[in-house]
Formats: sequence, C-alpha cells, structure tokens
Amino acid sequence: MTTHAGTIFVINPNSTEKVTEGIDRAVEPLRIVGGPRIECLTLKEGPPDIQTQRDVDGVVTPLLVLIGELDRRADAYVIACFSDPGLHAAREATSKPVLGIMECGILTALTLGQQFGVIAIFAGSVPRHLRLIGAMGVAERCAGDLPVDIPIAALADARKTSQRMIEIGRRLRDEKGANVLVMGCAGMAQYRDELENEIGIPVVEPTQAATAMAIGRVRLGW
Amino acid sequence: MTTHAGTIFVINPNSTEKVTEGIDRAVEPLRIVGGPRIECLTLKEGPPDIQTQRDVDGVVTPLLVLIGELDRRADAYVIACFSDPGLHAAREATSKPVLGIMECGILTALTLGQQFGVIAIFAGSVPRHLRLIGAMGVAERCAGDLPVDIPIAALADARKTSQRMIEIGRRLRDEKGANVLVMGCAGMAQYRDELENEIGIPVVEPTQAATAMAIGRVRLGW
Amino acid sequence: MTTHAGTIFVINPNSTEKVTEGIDRAVEPLRIVGGPRIECLTLKEGPPDIQTQRDVDGVVTPLLVLIGELDRRADAYVIACFSDPGLHAAREATSKPVLGIMECGILTALTLGQQFGVIAIFAGSVPRHLRLIGAMGVAERCAGDLPVDIPIAALADARKTSQRMIEIGRRLRDEKGANVLVMGCAGMAQYRDELENEIGIPVVEPTQAATAMAIGRVRLGW
Amino acid sequence: MTTHAGTIFVINPNSTEKVTEGIDRAVEPLRIVGGPRIECLTLKEGPPDIQTQRDVDGVVTPLLVLIGELDRRADAYVIACFSDPGLHAAREATSKPVLGIMECGILTALTLGQQFGVIAIFAGSVPRHLRLIGAMGVAERCAGDLPVDIPIAALADARKTSQRMIEIGRRLRDEKGANVLVMGCAGMAQYRDELENEIGIPVVEPTQAATAMAIGRVRLGW
Amino acid sequence: MTTHAGTIFVINPNSTEKVTEGIDRAVEPLRIVGGPRIECLTLKEGPPDIQTQRDVDGVVTPLLVLIGELDRRADAYVIACFSDPGLHAAREATSKPVLGIMECGILTALTLGQQFGVIAIFAGSVPRHLRLIGAMGVAERCAGDLPVDIPIAALADARKTSQRMIEIGRRLRDEKGANVLVMGCAGMAQYRDELENEIGIPVVEPTQAATAMAIGRVRLGW
Amino acid sequence: MTTHAGTIFVINPNSTEKVTEGIDRAVEPLRIVGGPRIECLTLKEGPPDIQTQRDVDGVVTPLLVLIGELDRRADAYVIACFSDPGLHAAREATSKPVLGIMECGILTALTLGQQFGVIAIFAGSVPRHLRLIGAMGVAERCAGDLPVDIPIAALADARKTSQRMIEIGRRLRDEKGANVLVMGCAGMAQYRDELENEIGIPVVEPTQAATAMAIGRVRLGW
Repeated sequence: MTTHAGTIFVINPNSTEKVTEGIDRAVEPLRIVGGPRIECLTLKEGPPDIQTQRDVDGVVTPLLVLIGELDRRADAYVIACFSDPGLHAAREATSKPVLGIMECGILTALTLGQQFGVIAIFAGSVPRHLRLIGAMGVAERCAGDLPVDIPIAALADARKTSQRMIEIGRRLRDEKGANVLVMGCAGMAQYRDELENEIGIPVVEPTQAATAMAIGRVRLGW
Repeated sequence: MTTHAGTIFVINPNSTEKVTEGIDRAVEPLRIVGGPRIECLTLKEGPPDIQTQRDVDGVVTPLLVLIGELDRRADAYVIACFSDPGLHAAREATSKPVLGIMECGILTALTLGQQFGVIAIFAGSVPRHLRLIGAMGVAERCAGDLPVDIPIAALADARKTSQRMIEIGRRLRDEKGANVLVMGCAGMAQYRDELENEIGIPVVEPTQAATAMAIGRVRLGW
Repeated sequence: MTTHAGTIFVINPNSTEKVTEGIDRAVEPLRIVGGPRIECLTLKEGPPDIQTQRDVDGVVTPLLVLIGELDRRADAYVIACFSDPGLHAAREATSKPVLGIMECGILTALTLGQQFGVIAIFAGSVPRHLRLIGAMGVAERCAGDLPVDIPIAALADARKTSQRMIEIGRRLRDEKGANVLVMGCAGMAQYRDELENEIGIPVVEPTQAATAMAIGRVRLGW
Repeated sequence: MTTHAGTIFVINPNSTEKVTEGIDRAVEPLRIVGGPRIECLTLKEGPPDIQTQRDVDGVVTPLLVLIGELDRRADAYVIACFSDPGLHAAREATSKPVLGIMECGILTALTLGQQFGVIAIFAGSVPRHLRLIGAMGVAERCAGDLPVDIPIAALADARKTSQRMIEIGRRLRDEKGANVLVMGCAGMAQYRDELENEIGIPVVEPTQAATAMAIGRVRLGW
Repeated sequence: MTTHAGTIFVINPNSTEKVTEGIDRAVEPLRIVGGPRIECLTLKEGPPDIQTQRDVDGVVTPLLVLIGELDRRADAYVIACFSDPGLHAAREATSKPVLGIMECGILTALTLGQQFGVIAIFAGSVPRHLRLIGAMGVAERCAGDLPVDIPIAALADARKTSQRMIEIGRRLRDEKGANVLVMGCAGMAQYRDELENEIGIPVVEPTQAATAMAIGRVRLGW
Repeated sequence: MTTHAGTIFVINPNSTEKVTEGIDRAVEPLRIVGGPRIECLTLKEGPPDIQTQRDVDGVVTPLLVLIGELDRRADAYVIACFSDPGLHAAREATSKPVLGIMECGILTALTLGQQFGVIAIFAGSVPRHLRLIGAMGVAERCAGDLPVDIPIAALADARKTSQRMIEIGRRLRDEKGANVLVMGCAGMAQYRDELENEIGIPVVEPTQAATAMAIGRVRLGW
C-alpha cells in the first residue's frame, strides 16, 4: 500500500479535449478525500476519434511513450477508449496496474445482470468488440452489441444521441434479452442516468467502472 | 451519489469471529478518509464454517434478515464467503449493490492474467465453484480449481497452510497453465503477499477485490 | 438393485397442494406395476409459490429436513420445482439419487432437438434459469428462455395460460430457432399435449422427465 | 400412453452375439413386471466390432432397414454402441423415440458429477467421441476421454480389462478432475460396480442409462 | 511435394450430374497451369439429392469404395456436399488429404467476418449443420443458419432461388448479425457474386473454399 | 478472377532477413507455374524479433504504410508472424484479401485433428496466443499452447531448437491430448517434416497454410 494517496492517470487516447473533459466529469464522483488523485490526460498524438482498428493500433506507440513518461509518478492507469487500445502492451511496459474501460465495463456489468448488451457508437466497431469479448472468454454472457450508428457530427447533438442510445438500449433489452447495458464509449457519462431511467435496466459507464477498479488496485498495492 | 461517505457492510456469513477479524484486516487498505465506511460483520446464525452446499444454502435466510435490518444504513454489501451464498437472493432483497467475493475475485483476476486458477480450501467445494464459474460464463478462462485439502484443524497452523497454498498455486501454474490465482477463501489476506512472491504470478484476495468494487459502486451511485 | 420395488418421493417444494395434485397426475403414467412407488409430497414449510431466488434458497433447509425424515424409506427423490432448489445440498445429504426437474427436463430435451427453448412462468425467473443453464454447461444448446409473464391469478385460467404458453412457444420456435421446448414449471402436464400439437415441436414436461430418470436410477441401483 | 406395456428394442449394431448377451444382462434390472418389454437384438449385417468411423457409418443403412422391420412393434429404440451410429438418421426414420447410449450415458452422468470422464476402449475412438461431445454442446463438462487401449484379444481377459479400466478411471479422476465416469462401451456392465468401488466416484453404464430413459419415453408417450 | 502436378478429386456424393457440372464450373478458377488437376466426379450410387441424415450416412460406403478405387491416382479429395458426408471415415481410409466443403467453407468464412451465417437449402438440414458446427467447436462464431426452404422443383428456377437466397442472406445479416455468409450447398457458385453484391457482405462458396485448401495441401505435401 | 496470375505479398513484419529467407523457402512449393507470384518481403521498420505485445502493436503502422505502397500491385497479403500483427487493421486498409499465419495455421489444423496444440517460441507469447484463440472462438479445439522457451541465441542452433520443439510437441500430444500441432512461428518450415516424423501427428507450418489460402482467394477473386 502506498503511503501517499497515489495517482491514477486516466488517458483519453484520442486527441479530442472535449472527450477528456467528459471523462474528467465522469470520474469526479471517484475523487475521494484521502484517495488516489485522478488525473485525466489527452494523448496528443492520438487521432481525433478512434473508430477503426487502424486507429486503435495506431495509438499504442504514443500511449506507451506517455506511460513511460508518467510511470515514476503513476500508481495506475486507465485507458479510456472502448477498444482498450494498447491494454496488453501497456501491461508489459509497466508494473503498475493498467485497466481498460471495455474490459472493466463488461466485468462490472457481470455483477449487474445475467446478459449484457453493448451500445456501440460506430457500426464498424462491433466486430472488433466481439473479438475482444471472445478474447475475454465472456461471449456466453453477451446478449448483443448494436451501434448507435449516427454520423459523428450528429453525436454533438445531445438529444439526438440520447434518443438513439435509448432506442438501441431498448432493442438490446427486448430483442436480445439484455439485463444490463454497457455504454460503448468514453466521456459520455452524462447520458447514463437518463438511459437507465428510460430503459429500466442497469447501465454501466465504463470509464467509471475502470477507474473504480483502479482505485482498489492502488489502495491494495496489487 | 451519496453526500455522506456511505457504509459498506462486509458480511462474514460464517459465525467465526476470527474470520471476520481477518476480513477486517484485509479491507483496512480500502478505508479511505473520505470514502465509504467499511464495517465487517459476523452472521451469528451462520455455521462456524461454510464447507458444504447445505452450509451455503443455509445462510441465505439469516443473511437476508440481516440485510433487511441493515438496509436503511447500508450503501452496499459484500458477501464474504467464496461460495457467494445468497448473492442473488440479496440482489432481489435490496436496491443497494451486493457483491460476492467469488464473483469479484474472479472478475478482478481477469484483469491480471489470461487463465485463472482457484486455490480452494476444501476438496468438496471444487464442484460447487465450477458450477458457479459455469454460471458466470467464464469457464474458458479457468485453468483449474485445486484444493488445499488439509483438515480444518491444520488451517490454524499458518505455516502449514501457507506451504500447502504455495504448493497448490505452483501446481495450478505449472500443470494447469494459470497466469493468476484467486484465493478461494475469505479472511486469509495475510497469505497473499507471500503466495505472490513464492509463486511469481499475481494473486487476488477476493474480499479485497469485492470491497474495492463496492467502493466504486457507492461513489458512483449505481 | 433393491428387491422391493422402491419408493421415489417427488417433492413439491412449494406449499400449494393443487400443484402437488398436478404433479401427481403428471407422474401417473410412470407408475408401473412392479416398479418403484411414486409418492408426491408437499413441502408444508415452502412458500405458496416459488418465484424469486429468495424463495428458492428458502426451501432448502426444510427440504433437507424432510429428506432426513424420508431417507430410510426413500430410494430416490425428485425435486419438483423448475429452479431445482436444494438439488446440490440434497445430493450431499443423502446417498440416494436426487434429480431436479429443470436439470432433467433440459437433459431430456437434448435427446429431442438441437436447440431447446424454455417456457418460463415468471419473467423474474429467466436470469436464474440462465445461471443454471450456464452452470450445467449447456448454454450452446439453449435457443432462449421466455416467460409467459401473466399475473399469478391468471394462471388459474387454463385457457388463458395455455394460449400464452403456445404464443411463447411459437416465439421460441420462430424467433429463436428452438427445435424442442421445455415447460418451465411443475404440475402443468395437462398442457403438454396441446402445446406440442399447436406448436409442432416436441415439448418436455420436466417433472415427468425427472421421475423417469429416477425410475432408472432406482432399478439400476446407482 | 400405450395400453400395452410396449417394447423397447435395444440394438447392438455390431454382429457379436456375446456383446448382445452382455447388453441383455445389463438391462435386466430395467425389466419391470408391468413395464415395457426390453428385447436386445444383434444387427447381423454389422461388423464384429465398431472401432472406426467407417464402421460407425457403415451400420446405418442396415440399422435403418432393421428399424423399418421393427417399427410396427416398437415403442422405442436404444442404439447400443458408444458412437451412437445412425442416431439421427433413425430419428428421421421413425416417430418412435430413439436413444443413443453415448448421448444418454453422458446426459445421465451430468446428474452425477460436475465433470465427466469417458473411459474409451480404442484410442482411435477418442477424436470421434470429442466430435460428438462438441456436437452435444457439453464440452465444458468434459474432463477428458482416455482409452483403455489394449488389443481387442486382451478385452476377453476380464481381469486385465478391468485393471486397465480402473487405471484409466483413476487418471481421469486425478489428472483431469473427473467427478463421474462414463464407460465408453456397451455390454460391459459387469465391470461397473467394481470400477465404482475401486475408483470411488460414480460410474455410468451407458446402455443402462439409455434404456432407462427409453422406459420413461414409452410410458409417457412422448 | 509431388513432382507431378497431382490430382484433386472433387466428389459430388449425390448422383445428379447437373450438380457435378455446377461444381466443375465452380472450381474452374482453381485450375492453375502447373497446378493440380481438378477432376469432378459424380457418385453414381448416391441419391439424387442429399437432404436427410439418412442420405448423408448412406453415401459413406459407396464414397469409401470410390476413394479406394481412386487412391492410387489421387493426391487429395474434396467431398462436395454441405453435410461433409463421410469426411471422417474417408480420413481413416486414405493418407491423402480429404476436405469437406462445409468444414472448409466455414473455416474460410472465419477469415472474412466475425460472425458467419449459413444459407441452407433445406429446413431439415439446419439441425444437422448445427451439430456439425458444434462438433467443429465454432458455435461462438455462428450468427445463424436459415434455410431457403423452397421446394426442390423450385430450385431449378434460378431467379426464384436467387431471390430467396438474397432474402435469407439479408435476414442473417440484419436479424442475426452475420458479417459473412456461407452458401450451404454445392454447385451453385453462379449465385455467389450476385448474393455478395446484393447483400453487401462477403459470401463464401464452399466448394471453391475446400478445393483451394486442397491445392495447398497437395503442393505442400502435408 | 484476375487475368494476370496475380501477386501475393508475404510480409515478414520483423526486420530479420534470415527469417524472410526462411519464409521464402517455406512458400516455394506454393509457387505454381501459372499461379500467383509469391513475393516475400521484410518490413524494414519492424523490430528484429516480435516477442511482446508492444512489438506486435508497433509493427502495425509501418505495415499499413507498406500495404499502401504495394496495394496497386497486390492481389493478396499474408502477414507472416504468429501473432497476426495488424491483421484487422490491414483488412480495413485494403480490399485485397489479407491472411494471418496464426489464424490460417489454426484453421488448417482444424482439418487435420480434433484438438490442436501450439508450439510457441516464447513463453511470453502464450497469453497473447490464447487471447487470439479466444477471439477466434476456437478455444474448445485447443489442447494447449506450450513454449519452446529457450534463449533467442539458442534458436540459431538448429539441433537444439529441433530437439526442444519435439519435446514440446510430445508434451502437447501426451499431456494435453493434441492430435495436430501448429508451429507457432514463421520461417522455420525446415523443421516441419522432422517434427511430424518424430512426434507422429500432423504438423502445420502456418506460413504455408496462410499462403495456400491466399492462392485460393486470388484465383477465386473473393
């Protein structure tokens, strides 16, 4: 156990500051007096958006460089992109805990419902998510993964995005039998409560889930 | 999110105070100044030991009664027995988060290694663990579950117990390919560090893992 | 092998005599001259209905007491509730065979079709069934589990219940690809034939399936 | 339900009468005074032994011819070879229940232990068994499948065969974690008790398991 | 590696020459100068159509006889029926590579999409396909298997067949989440391009897939 | 179908020319007179060795650049590193087929044996392989993955490497039940025959397997 409260770096691997701001707001409830400091960073070298496998793979090298720079000060890392880019490379690079929001979002969902559904943002991400779910060995618990699938520009429209997420959430619940949902994105925590109220089943905000697990790891020292 | 720090009740469903004391020491690192209060309780009506399915099923009713008594004050519960007794009944009984140490121990292990091995205490528990692992849908990630299998009396001998746990841990690592281990018991956190040092792969203390996840749930309010 | 024909106790763990009567009628075809006597019992301490996990867990202790009382006379037991309450605790408590209607209903369905669908009574039971199906390791053969989901009062209306079961059975067949159905309840054998005729795929009555397997075990002596 | 007790034909698809005699002795405990008549038949066109996939596939046509001849008198069939030859073709050919000893042996084992091990006779059968276990969707419950692997001539030596089966059974129990064993052959019921006593875990005789399930189907009429 | 280019026999196990002609056209692109000769043969003893398990099992013996006759000249075999009849018996019968179009069609699909859907011809084939997919251990990647389900006579109507295949393909894509499709039949390669253009996801022609894999095996000599 | 024979680029993503030479020798049998030209390239920007996840992720960007440069001339690509680095990113980047040697090595193994074992080079690669096997959804067919685990320097000693690979292959066969082996590396085809002769079960050389599948794709035009 660290004597100093410790620092968790929550890294947004895309270069969009607005997303990092959203992440920062999301983790605010996890800033505990006496607890680890949570610092949200933007990976400047990252693309504005992480949509494709190319994007995912492309952030790894700069991410590892950043981790190299931070490691002396870090007690844990959260990679805040739903494709968990660089998660395993990062785990080789540092002895500090590294958590990915997809992995932790799903693991947390498993404590909230029998079958989880993922609300993805981009249709093109779905096969990638399914590969990761297969790699995690939890496919049996996955009800489905459906994309909001609206143009990126429209994501700026909170109401439109929210509506569509609710729609997808209901489809996952009704057509696929989901008992819990995982928001397949970072920095959109402001939608969580409404989603849960409208759809009526638990909704996991994955950056919050991962950061929560990181706090435990820092406090426990393993 | 609660304005007051909140209270997590970590319930030892067996009636052995020594175990509760061990649990209490285990969760000490998770007591954060501004964080939820963690109160460890003994279920008086529980058996001295939970070894059999009968024991597991038998604690549910008194556990639910206890949860009924605590619920007004509670913000979350951790059921601190590796068979997660009453986990799902408790989740029906309260709207507060309920976490089981087996479930959370395994979920946390999944962030630490590809294949997890369980060090069980009693040989008779292994089939029950495997049923629960099947119910969790994570059998693909399970390298194996092997019991320490020494008489209960001998468990009081720390050195003998530790030796045997190390032996079993090494078998899981070498024969079964485990990359991470989960201690299949509550209140034995004092062995964790030595196990990890001796065996050389991460070791998850499940009560710590569950309580860590509970803190996140309390802070996040979902 | 027993020289005397033997006795199979089919225990209805809920306290509703009407259900036991339904169970008794269901197993009538299995009363074979020279075969084990089949005696259907009501667990007086059980709740009127078993709907929740709490109900399921709550019957275990009285069930084990009953088994303790019957064991000298028993050659096998069938637990006649689709959540198989106390199945594994009972298997510890007695050396006599214990069979659960959910487990046996599903195992028998596997000899009748590639993908089985479960017609559950209560929506709240579905996650519990899925946990058990996962524990059984047969999730790959499960097309789906859908509830009739009508108020308990309405279950007394045979026509309404039957209509709804047929509706759900067709959904399982058409939307989920079920080739065989399992009725997710005890004591409702009178609906089986109509369901099969209307839906056109085999329908397993689980209490009958379990009692049939029990007869075999008694005759074989293992 | 048939008014007449009904007839179950247990068909040995190999042409070795001695095996049929062994099968006949195996099912003797299942001959109940008022129950279905159990008649064991030898498929004359079958090979002396069924060892290879070629053997398995080769018995299907004559088996279907035999079923065609018997169908008017039959109420159910059991195919008594551990590769369940012709099981699915037979199910197309008749509306009467058809049960395979491998399928039923395994399904019954699932009510007796968490992980089942198969004691195969021939090493060459193991991949075929594993394909069938995969087709059944129960691979998660399979601890392993190991062959006795002694020359066919030596199978006539009861002591040698028994010794070897016990050896393999212990390997399945100790190395693979089997909690229950399935004898991967027909007509060898005389070894069952000894195997169970020597190895200390339940042992399923598959022809007995399948014939038991057949009795239920005949009595129930579905 | 063979010094002579080698011969691959692509065997149509049904006796309909038109299908063999379709197969022959399908493999034409795989006839490479300097590469193995690809000779398409009709199994005269086969049924006109392979629809049922009985049909599947019934072709094995004549298929093995044919393989016996060809083996001296053969360097590999492709069994060109989507139920891979006799695949495993053939693999025992010869040391030359034997490939089945269902197995290879699916394996190739796995390089083209995350979830594969099968467009079956006959509704009755679907459970058989699912058994084989379970035996292959790839059920997790299977989105679904839906039949065109039009009378055999109508299959001669190219437009009607094509329309229906497109319809089924779209259902697999939209309702089941298929990312790639496998045509569940042999000798219908002429539909492939149109299916792919209309449905917009990759479509695997399985005889082409298997023959491609056979070429590799012949050239490599293993 | 291409009118010109086409070109398959087999890319060695590590920068060691000797490995590329080994790959080039491995694919020689697949150079068919009228078939696609197979050109083996070294990724200059790649590390000398690909051992870690960092190495794997790090080659993606230069690999995509190379593919961008080659695409006009390419008809297919094979990524010749057993971790299939950049496989999915490459599939986004080009409309030409991209095949990975791990994926194809395993898919080909599935046509050669029921349970496949992987002979890995580095112990650190095993968890990565298992993740990929989980992502492929074929874990049920995987007997195990064991590393040769000798220092890189020693890999230059052909005899020592061969000895060790045979040893590991036998362990996979005897302890894990493997029926077929996959060499978990590129450019070591010269060991294949000896491995197969010594161990007695089929051995898949993955670069050969992938290049074979690529030839098919080029000839078929899908």
